[in-house]
Amino acid sequence: MANWQLIEEVRARNPLVHVITNIVVANDLANGLLALGASPIMASAVEEMVELGGLADVVVINIGTLNADLVASMLAVGKAANAAGTPVVLDPVGVGATAYRRETVRRLLAEIQFAVIRGNIGELASIAGVDWNARGVDAGSGDTTQATDIALKVAREYKTVVAISGAVDTISDGEHVRTIKNGDPLLPQITGSGCLLSCMIAAFVSVTDDYLTAVVTASASYAIASEYAAKTLKRNLPASFRIAFIDELALLHTHDHEKLASIEEVR
Amino acid sequence: MANWQLIEEVRARNPLVHVITNIVVANDLANGLLALGASPIMASAVEEMVELGGLADVVVINIGTLNADLVASMLAVGKAANAAGTPVVLDPVGVGATAYRRETVRRLLAEIQFAVIRGNIGELASIAGVDWNARGVDAGSGDTTQATDIALKVAREYKTVVAISGAVDTISDGEHVRTIKNGDPLLPQITGSGCLLSCMIAAFVSVTDDYLTAVVTASASYAIASEYAAKTLKRNLPASFRIAFIDELALLHTHDHEKLASIEEVR
Amino acid sequence: MANWQLIEEVRARNPLVHVITNIVVANDLANGLLALGASPIMASAVEEMVELGGLADVVVINIGTLNADLVASMLAVGKAANAAGTPVVLDPVGVGATAYRRETVRRLLAEIQFAVIRGNIGELASIAGVDWNARGVDAGSGDTTQATDIALKVAREYKTVVAISGAVDTISDGEHVRTIKNGDPLLPQITGSGCLLSCMIAAFVSVTDDYLTAVVTASASYAIASEYAAKTLKRNLPASFRIAFIDELALLHTHDHEKLASIEEVR
Repeated sequence: MANWQLIEEVRARNPLVHVITNIVVANDLANGLLALGASPIMASAVEEMVELGGLADVVVINIGTLNADLVASMLAVGKAANAAGTPVVLDPVGVGATAYRRETVRRLLAEIQFAVIRGNIGELASIAGVDWNARGVDAGSGDTTQATDIALKVAREYKTVVAISGAVDTISDGEHVRTIKNGDPLLPQITGSGCLLSCMIAAFVSVTDDYLTAVVTASASYAIASEYAAKTLKRNLPASFRIAFIDELALLHTHDHEKLASIEEVR
Repeated sequence: MANWQLIEEVRARNPLVHVITNIVVANDLANGLLALGASPIMASAVEEMVELGGLADVVVINIGTLNADLVASMLAVGKAANAAGTPVVLDPVGVGATAYRRETVRRLLAEIQFAVIRGNIGELASIAGVDWNARGVDAGSGDTTQATDIALKVAREYKTVVAISGAVDTISDGEHVRTIKNGDPLLPQITGSGCLLSCMIAAFVSVTDDYLTAVVTASASYAIASEYAAKTLKRNLPASFRIAFIDELALLHTHDHEKLASIEEVR
Repeated sequence: MANWQLIEEVRARNPLVHVITNIVVANDLANGLLALGASPIMASAVEEMVELGGLADVVVINIGTLNADLVASMLAVGKAANAAGTPVVLDPVGVGATAYRRETVRRLLAEIQFAVIRGNIGELASIAGVDWNARGVDAGSGDTTQATDIALKVAREYKTVVAISGAVDTISDGEHVRTIKNGDPLLPQITGSGCLLSCMIAAFVSVTDDYLTAVVTASASYAIASEYAAKTLKRNLPASFRIAFIDELALLHTHDHEKLASIEEVR
């Protein structure tokens, strides 16, 4: 269900990943992508979005610290990428938190065809129009068995691959459903760990046409890297973990994925 | 004078801390708040400020990399928080450095009621209208015995709690004055160490009505965490210290505050 | 050719370095400048640029995440600094990647006199109008023996000192050419390692009128710091390296530059 060979593929092709992102996590995304063997570019001026949408190997749109100027840039780069046949990944950070975010994501979904939408369950529930007890940019708590239904619904409605991140990751292309049970508990304690996963998924999506496999492989290898990182720590503390984790992204090709991956075919 | 129980209170309640902040320190603020057990959100679009000002448990306004759009958002979120009875903390970064900063802070103080104002002595001297040899965003040097007078003056004029950070922290609600003599010398060598303290103060203010005690407790436990962090280092160097310090914020509840806190009741 | 005494000079004078920069690297630039003994300020509002351009000891303009507002601020601060006789350093991040970047840099070069322009060879080739196989914000690959010609051409045309960073650094004032063969291979794997070098060059330029020597000294000591940093690592991995590297910037005055520097006088 995963194709670990894609890890070497990313390193060999060094894809240009264009990310419109937020002021909180931009540095980690860039360093994480570099560690992975990709090449990040984080421009956001509307004047250069059409050019970059055509130039990049993949585009990531993250709405974390959105504003009117950035939304114009997101629309421009997304449409340009669509026109060029370049895949686009959406990270709808905190979409349920405000009307402005819901409205922006509605517009992005209406005007851009996304290859992948990745978020936590609160975010995907908001897109699906399902009640969920989200809170700010956090996932909130609720019935996680709903994840499969939400993933299927959003994937079908927007003809995309959906990745719902959490203690269990749920991934669907609207027909198949995969779950991944990997990842150290420190990972969600780092700001931007979901945002960086979206970028990593983008890098994998840029080197294959099989998006479902790309998303499963990226998500599983990312989670497994967090397990390796935790093992290097003297004390299980978040700031040290963050450094160790980005280090492990540079070692992805050395990890024993066959042995550690806990991926299930739910459907 | 401090109430160490508030540390557990923050962890138990996981307050939603909405921060309008700057591009330099946003990542450390988010990771620091997460380590503390709070839940950060860093939106800044004016379109969503009224909603977030009502939703958050506390709001922090940091003027570090302000611009006209952000000032509009600061005013909107501050007023919305005031209307909802949600406390607002001001971090007037480098207020004395330019006329634009002075004018912006004057306007924020006129239109928003702040629960706490935290800055270095150069910044608070500027707000108090007292001559001070500040420099850029640094505190500058001058007669630190003035801190008590400045803290009292600003606290009274703006009916707020003032925290002046430095080798000695000076905290006043306009009547009482407390000083704290804790903290490792590496702490001010990290960019944003004051900004993160403002966020930490905000988290503590969100779980009690006794703001003076909240500010004293947050400031003292923050400074003591820096002492613990320094002890874990092989070499006293700033980047390693920064990681160790954020790690210690996740261990705040394990520190021996009773033994280490050096808090004085000046008035 | 280098003047290691400038390291102590920077620490003694604690220059105020005003940086207009991007959301990806702002934190590292601030912490790196603090480690070096300089005092960073990262404002970007056009309303305060004239004042800061006159106040700062040196100004750095980095176009990494430029937009129309920031370009207006860059022009304002650059002209104010020129009027005050304050040196200005340009970091033309990814200038070749889009027409908007090329046009912006053309305008900055026409309206501001730069003391130094620092970039990778792809960026300087773009400014020189020389064909080069650049890619996004990366240098790309090509004939590095061209570096001398490109550095001389740009330095003469814009009456400035040019620093081309890479495995070999090439520095020219339009007459003399120096190369530096120092630096650990992990350094370019960190996002913003070039941006931080521009800031470090700025700090050195602010304490002497001999810009060529300042740039050579800053570049060589920066590269040598990366060699020291790599030696402290248990595993050669990028996130750990980044922390170790900023730590070494605080130890610059302890490094054995005489022994380690590999500087050549090419012309």
